Parts: sequence; C-alpha cells; structure tokens
Amino acid sequence: MSESPFLSPACPAPAAAGGAIELAHGGGGRLPHGLIEGLFRPALATAPEDFTHDGATLEIDPRGARLAFTTDSYVVRPLFFPGGDIGSLAVNGTVNDLAMCGAEPRYLSVGLVIEEGFSIEALSRVIDSMRDAAHAASVRIVTGDTKVVEWGKGDGVYVNTSGVGLIRARRPVAPQHVRPGDAAILSGDIGRHGIAILAARESLGFESEITSDCAPLAGAVLGLLEAGVEPHCMRDLTRGGLATGLIEIAQAANVAIHLDQAAILVSDAVRGACEILGLDPLYVANEGRFVVLVPADHASRAVAVMRRFDERAAVIGHVEAARRSSGVHLSTIGGSRELDMLSGEQLPRIC
Amino acid sequence: MSESPFLSPACPAPAAAGGAIELAHGGGGRLPHGLIEGLFRPALATAPEDFTHDGATLEIDPRGARLAFTTDSYVVRPLFFPGGDIGSLAVNGTVNDLAMCGAEPRYLSVGLVIEEGFSIEALSRVIDSMRDAAHAASVRIVTGDTKVVEWGKGDGVYVNTSGVGLIRARRPVAPQHVRPGDAAILSGDIGRHGIAILAARESLGFESEITSDCAPLAGAVLGLLEAGVEPHCMRDLTRGGLATGLIEIAQAANVAIHLDQAAILVSDAVRGACEILGLDPLYVANEGRFVVLVPADHASRAVAVMRRFDERAAVIGHVEAARRSSGVHLSTIGGSRELDMLSGEQLPRIC
Repeated sequence: MSESPFLSPACPAPAAAGGAIELAHGGGGRLPHGLIEGLFRPALATAPEDFTHDGATLEIDPRGARLAFTTDSYVVRPLFFPGGDIGSLAVNGTVNDLAMCGAEPRYLSVGLVIEEGFSIEALSRVIDSMRDAAHAASVRIVTGDTKVVEWGKGDGVYVNTSGVGLIRARRPVAPQHVRPGDAAILSGDIGRHGIAILAARESLGFESEITSDCAPLAGAVLGLLEAGVEPHCMRDLTRGGLATGLIEIAQAANVAIHLDQAAILVSDAVRGACEILGLDPLYVANEGRFVVLVPADHASRAVAVMRRFDERAAVIGHVEAARRSSGVHLSTIGGSRELDMLSGEQLPRIC
Repeated sequence: MSESPFLSPACPAPAAAGGAIELAHGGGGRLPHGLIEGLFRPALATAPEDFTHDGATLEIDPRGARLAFTTDSYVVRPLFFPGGDIGSLAVNGTVNDLAMCGAEPRYLSVGLVIEEGFSIEALSRVIDSMRDAAHAASVRIVTGDTKVVEWGKGDGVYVNTSGVGLIRARRPVAPQHVRPGDAAILSGDIGRHGIAILAARESLGFESEITSDCAPLAGAVLGLLEAGVEPHCMRDLTRGGLATGLIEIAQAANVAIHLDQAAILVSDAVRGACEILGLDPLYVANEGRFVVLVPADHASRAVAVMRRFDERAAVIGHVEAARRSSGVHLSTIGGSRELDMLSGEQLPRIC
C-alpha cells in the first residue's frame, strides 16, 4: 500500500507525531488509517497481507482447511438501541467480518471489560442477546473472559468478539483482486445503524423510529458462493459507511469505482434525519449491509441470490481502470463528484 | 459441573442476584466463577466442554487439524511494570492459555480500546512490546482492531488478545483426565507477578526490585509433548495463583491434591513482601508459571524437560482419590491445612 495517502505529510503517522489519541482515531476516516498503517502494520505485520483488511487467513497445515480469523472490540453507546444492542452487534459484526473473507463463520470468543457497578440484569440481557445472535448466525460461542475495572474507568461494558471461520471461497477475496469491468452490488438500503444510534443517544424524536440494520451477512455470502458467483472483494459497510468502504477498496486496487447515486437506496426516514443532522448517508455506518464486487457476467446471478435475503439488493456501480487517480466517483442527476475520505470522526462510538 | 460450589445458595448465580458488578467479579476467587458459571455457561455454552477452561478445541473438519482457540482481555494497572507491560502480558497470557490446551500457539489477534488523550508514544511502546513478545513466542499477530473511547471512559489502553493454536497433545488435556497417583509439577518460583504489580502501583520501595515472571510457556509445554510426557492437565497460575488453579482442578476432577509446602519455591523477596502486605504467596498471581499433572512414572522425565526452561521446576505434590471432599491439602512442617477458594478480590486489575 505504498500509495496510501495516510502516511503523507498532511496526515503524519501517529508514531511520529508524539501526540495523543483523539476520538477520531476510532472513526472511519483518515486518522484510524494512520493508526493501523502508521503503528500496527510496521510493528506487527510479518506478511504483506497482515492488517490489510478485517481478518486474516490462517494456513494451519498444508492439507488442512483454510481458516479466517478476525477480531473486533465494541464500545457502542448506548448499549441498547432500536434494532439491537452491544451483544447482537458484537456477534453480527464479527460474523460479518468472517463472511467478508469468504468464510463460513463457525466459532466466536467473547471478552468483556465490565465497569464496577454495572447492573447484572443489563449484563444478562447483553449475554442473552449474544446467544440469540449466535444462534441466528449458526455460530458457536466457545470461550470467554471477563475483566472488571473500577467505576469511572469504563462505560458499562465493552465487548470483544474474535472469530474463526472456514474459508469457502475458492479464490482469494481481497481488494487487489478487483478488476476493471467488475460490478458493485449493494445488499440493501444504507445509513440505518448510524442514525438509530444517534437518535437513541441524543433522544431525538424522529417521526418514525429508525431501527439499526444490525444483522448477519453470512447467509447471503454463502449463497453467492454456492451459486458459483466469484466475489473479487466484499466489504461490510460499518464505520465510515459505503463511501469509506469503497474508497479503501478503490485505493488498494488502484481502480476507479463509478457509482450511480440513483441506485443507492436510502429510506425516507434516514434521508430526512440526515438532512436535519447535516450528515451524508453515504458516510453513515451500517451493521448489516455489504457491497460485493463481481465480474460483470456474474452480476445478475449475484443480485438474484442477494434478493433472497433483501429484495432491495441492486447493482450500484462499476469499476474502471484508474486514469489519473484511484477513487470513487458518484454520478448524480446534476453531474458527478469524487468522494473524499472523511478527515475527522462523524459519529464516535457507533460500534 | 453440577457439583460446582459456585451455584450454591452461599454464592448465588449473579443473574439471580439482581445486583451490580463488583471489582471482585474480575478476580481469582468465588465471584468470577459465579459470573462464568451463573451467566456465561447457561446462556452461551452449546457443548458440555464450552467455558470449562481458558480455551476451546475447534473441530474444523474431520480430516483436519484440531485447533485451540482462546481469548483474554487485559486491564492491568499500571500499564508498565518491572519485567513487562500490558503488551507483553497480553501476548504471553494468550500464548500460555493455548499452551495449557496442549497446543502450539500460532496466530494472535489484537483488539485495543484506547482512551482519548492517551499518549501515542506509550501506545507505540505497548505495540513494540507485543511485537517482541510475539517474536519470542514464535507466534504471528495477524489481525487487529482499535476503538477509541472518551477521556474518563477508559484507563489508557485495554488490550484483548485472542489466539489460535494447533493441538499437539495426542490425548485431551483437561481437569477431568487427572487421576489418583498423578504427580503435580510446578515450573518455577511463585508470586512474582502479583507483587511486582502491587509494588509498582503503590510505589512500595522493597529492598530489592521484584520483577514480574511474565513469559511464554509454550516452549516448555511443547518440550514435554515431544519427550512423550502425557500431561493430564495443565494450568497457568494467573489470577488467584497456585492455590486457586489447583482447587479448580481438584474440584473439576473430584480428587484431592496433596501439596508439600517445602517443595513450593517462593523467593525471599516475594516472601518478605507478602509478609509486609499480609498476602499468601499461594494466592498471588503469576504470568509465567504453570503446574502440570502427569502420571507418576512420567514425573522425572517431565521435571528434566521443565528444568531446561527453569532449573527450579519441581514435583510439589500428588493426587489422591477424594475421600470426603475434593480439594487441595497443604502439608506444612507443623501439620496440614486445606486451601480455600478466596471469596473476595486479592488484587484487582492484576492482568
């Protein structure tokens, strides 16, 4: 990733800055990339593919199965929100990271950091929610750990889930396999998780309650693979939303992704909330939506499979060779514009 | 584990208590067992072996390798202490949990929850320390995640490490395989990690600096397996120390473990500090010590292997059938006493 803009002088690697961590380091924009690219990869990566996306492929033994391995910590605030809670979010988020590797999610671990004084009734609800989400996603939670910190050193409960899955994709699924001509397919409407969290946090009374899209994506991904679709790259559209996910892919693949704004579904409720709040739904977090890039002649088969899971799945764009620079271009009724990576934090602690 | 005392009326399952989380829920005594036994296992376990020890065995496919999978969160305070820091602790702790399953540690994930305002220089030191510890333990850190929480909602950085290893033990390694006649072997002196942390935290100026024993144990475990030793059970002696680890094993195996106090090595510095602080070194945490239970005729071979890694390794006791009740009995010069599970928290945030 030598072309990554995140190490340019405009955004120095944090290790060189001698500064302090900002909330934006946890968001979906430039700063967290600086943290991963500037600190994690140089120090920890021992193979080129390490830390390049939200999961790793494990080669356990030459004749054995290929495994996917991923981890995520969840610090969402509030813990309970319309459409989910930190428990279902933690299970679905890690299930989805495995699915995006082309893997069948199989086993999860749970690590809890609990604040002293947290209600055991609330903790029970979180754990029951994890159980239900694991059941719905056909994964087993097999091991766990709890730590307790003093009152005022946490915020209720923070959850880490790590996961192991069995890779079912016959070819590697990663940004560098994206090719000019590929179709970009979106699995449903966007922006619901971020707006649901914000509404719950700020007690905003929108006309209709917006619920998070928090859901497992493994069924749709396994459906694609079973139907013989070859996903070149898949991405669940969490922190930073659709725009950030696609910009990352375009830059890693050194291609231009052209999107048709009219094809990108945003519900009226989310659109109205975004207008009031001054947010662009393209950058708002989702927790049950993904984009998949497939060869053009696989696109209609892929859409048919994905519509079994959400009838709103649709082709939203296509890939071209990067002429001047890689990136994402959005065609609107009035013309077109290039989408930029956010430089700050849109919504902290969204997941 | 229907005989577990942790669900008895004297220590009700937390779910039934309607109360709040206490610091002691994070320690090495009765309360955290209540949390795991009372909440986690009933809600999450789908197989009898789930959540019975610090790791799970994954059956990936019938002809494939057997894997161990484990997770731990680290909230140690202070982050840097003599002999280690939260980074080396997190790597070695998870390496050791895998080793205790009879597995060769292979891959780790890292999840960080960072407090806003935390120094990037300190974060770099933690990550460099993780890199060095991973190198020393021959594991690869392959995937990671960072979240940032507001100032005052964390404490510098909390680290989760999860790990995957390849099981090398030919037979299952677990408490229920412990048999009367087995020898108990301890890998070195005890109590150093807990005292090092407490001294660093309270700025206690002991005559000689006590350093943590934080270290990887996989080399010694793989050495035992290569030498043909059959470990029936292994346990790294973290929160709750040697006593708690052995009490858990004795209760799960329904046996009596007899220890010879004279064989259990405690350095003069640790013994002196424990006397001043009113602590029993048998209950103080270690981060680089383990106990292994092996058939009596494997004991001398096992000790010989373990002395290649620490010349202080020694047989400290043996297993007998439980007569009246399972538990751990300590023979001292003056007589003998039964060791009890701690009911509270000896040292919070020790790991």
